[in-house]
Amino acid sequence: MIERIVEGLERQEPAALARAISLVENQRDGFERLLSHVHAGLGRGGSRRIGVTGPPGAGKSTLTERLIQQFRARQLRVGVVAVDPTSPFTGGALLGDRIRMESAGLDPSVFIRSMATRGAHGGLATTTDEVADLLEAFGFERILIETVGVGQTELDVARTAESTVLVLVPESGDGIQTLKAGVMEIADLYVINKSDRPGADKLRQEVEVMLGIRRGNAFRHVAPHHTPGAVAGDRGRSRAVAAAGGEWEPPVLATVASKGEGVDELVTALDRHYNHLQQSGKLAARRRERLAQRTRAVLERAVQQWIMEDTRAEQLLAARLDDVADGRRSPYDVAAEILDQVKAGTPR
Amino acid sequence: MIERIVEGLERQEPAALARAISLVENQRDGFERLLSHVHAGLGRGGSRRIGVTGPPGAGKSTLTERLIQQFRARQLRVGVVAVDPTSPFTGGALLGDRIRMESAGLDPSVFIRSMATRGAHGGLATTTDEVADLLEAFGFERILIETVGVGQTELDVARTAESTVLVLVPESGDGIQTLKAGVMEIADLYVINKSDRPGADKLRQEVEVMLGIRRGNAFRHVAPHHTPGAVAGDRGRSRAVAAAGGEWEPPVLATVASKGEGVDELVTALDRHYNHLQQSGKLAARRRERLAQRTRAVLERAVQQWIMEDTRAEQLLAARLDDVADGRRSPYDVAAEILDQVKAGTPR
Repeated sequence: MIERIVEGLERQEPAALARAISLVENQRDGFERLLSHVHAGLGRGGSRRIGVTGPPGAGKSTLTERLIQQFRARQLRVGVVAVDPTSPFTGGALLGDRIRMESAGLDPSVFIRSMATRGAHGGLATTTDEVADLLEAFGFERILIETVGVGQTELDVARTAESTVLVLVPESGDGIQTLKAGVMEIADLYVINKSDRPGADKLRQEVEVMLGIRRGNAFRHVAPHHTPGAVAGDRGRSRAVAAAGGEWEPPVLATVASKGEGVDELVTALDRHYNHLQQSGKLAARRRERLAQRTRAVLERAVQQWIMEDTRAEQLLAARLDDVADGRRSPYDVAAEILDQVKAGTPR
Repeated sequence: MIERIVEGLERQEPAALARAISLVENQRDGFERLLSHVHAGLGRGGSRRIGVTGPPGAGKSTLTERLIQQFRARQLRVGVVAVDPTSPFTGGALLGDRIRMESAGLDPSVFIRSMATRGAHGGLATTTDEVADLLEAFGFERILIETVGVGQTELDVARTAESTVLVLVPESGDGIQTLKAGVMEIADLYVINKSDRPGADKLRQEVEVMLGIRRGNAFRHVAPHHTPGAVAGDRGRSRAVAAAGGEWEPPVLATVASKGEGVDELVTALDRHYNHLQQSGKLAARRRERLAQRTRAVLERAVQQWIMEDTRAEQLLAARLDDVADGRRSPYDVAAEILDQVKAGTPR
């Protein structure tokens, strides 16, 4: 059955892709064998992964649509993994469906899959990355990984990509300057969307100043209250320095996704970032790091499964629960006892 | 050293509490022994945990301040764990500090601790719950667990509490009706804050209708387009039914936290929820379920630590990484090989 799915993926049958994704999403029997099969062919065809993240209402779905159009105009096949929030706050849960219904709906070279975060917990980034593997194996040349939430889990998901785009809008800029500089280090490219709205220039300037401060540019520390013009001049200077050192300086781009403005520039910047990763050797290094992380994550998952399903851990836990509830034993005692039994080798 | 901290907690020394929290947050040597010590005394003194969650800008920090005031007026000692987002979107990172500087700042019966989500990943809910244990051991009678993010991780954190409050504001209501009913099942109490703003009634009605649909009330399915008056009548009826069946019907409360309006009613509703939990036997059942989950989480953590630190897993992983990067081996092969070695009993 796994063999048939693998063959189907190679023949680019949509039904095989859909089955493969279900298998992986639900971690059904054989899903790791499938992923193991797929692994050998990855990282060769020049397929690129792009993470798009940002707060609710930043216009990520519209921007994603525009990116799809741009990639299609370049004859590139596009896969999208849209990670839906479980959160009741964003109104973005139907994102995947919305895009599907609109511009991309009838194009067989575009595939969009929504993933629910419900219940996936810590493993969501791994599962998303595994689904992206399937999309790559199927032959998609650009894979967009879009997360709608704004929590730790969602950031982890977006950062499995080679290039991460953080989308902000003027309304989300409140208080951005009060944040520690460190938290901005999450993206490779910054997009100020809805940049025709009031406050867009101010937000852009704030983000640029913050990125400048983060890089420890002495000039800015001395004169933090510069005009937009001064910022631009300053950026020009530090960009030259950065280029010489082979460092990537995250650009801050302005878009109006609803009108398609600035999207071409975003695609160009994404190409520039990818070229930078390639030429600097970071692409190979990042890929290696990601593979190490993946192996660790797969091992963790396998270990948990082993402990909970093939050892007496769950039984022991149930047997000790009364003691824990009564305060006679602590969760820590019981966990240590179970671990000792696992180490000693439990009868299987 | 652990013994001194335990003694310090019993004598209610603030310095001991601060040290204990650092120890637990950073998982330093002995932190599990400390928590194990603390465990036996928990769940006896009537200390209650209240989770407060909601989107950025919902006014959670102001509401938390008001709750602190209300609890203090009732002579209750209040501990707060404010889980800060790493996300650059919310502007809420300084929340803990802000409160500390305002009304609660000089009151020794109020303790506020900010926790960063950075790097904590999947374990954040567990760590937050463990810090809450320390606050309980120290003698705080109300423990507020506030999460500013809106992702899966943050919801998990808020739900470690006995009562979870979801704070919404009229601005966050857009599209709430497009969400699946299931995602609303996260809270025990709903608060429409900033309820003096336009759209508050509409949001309240939407939330109530959604909660009604969720409960499968036949009347509502037949006539979904009722007026606010009809909603109220309908609610009255289903509340009576719910009371008879011992079910909790989450109330939807209106507050204007900045003016202190509706906060008294929120405290009353929290008391009502706690009494409901006690009388229905759910308090004991939830506590038992939470202890089982905690034990599982502690076991998972201990197992990961064992695998990565006391077995040859990390070494094997490093040795196989070239093969994985070259595509000769897959992460799944390597993980399986390492797990086999662990099972076979690795030399330690």
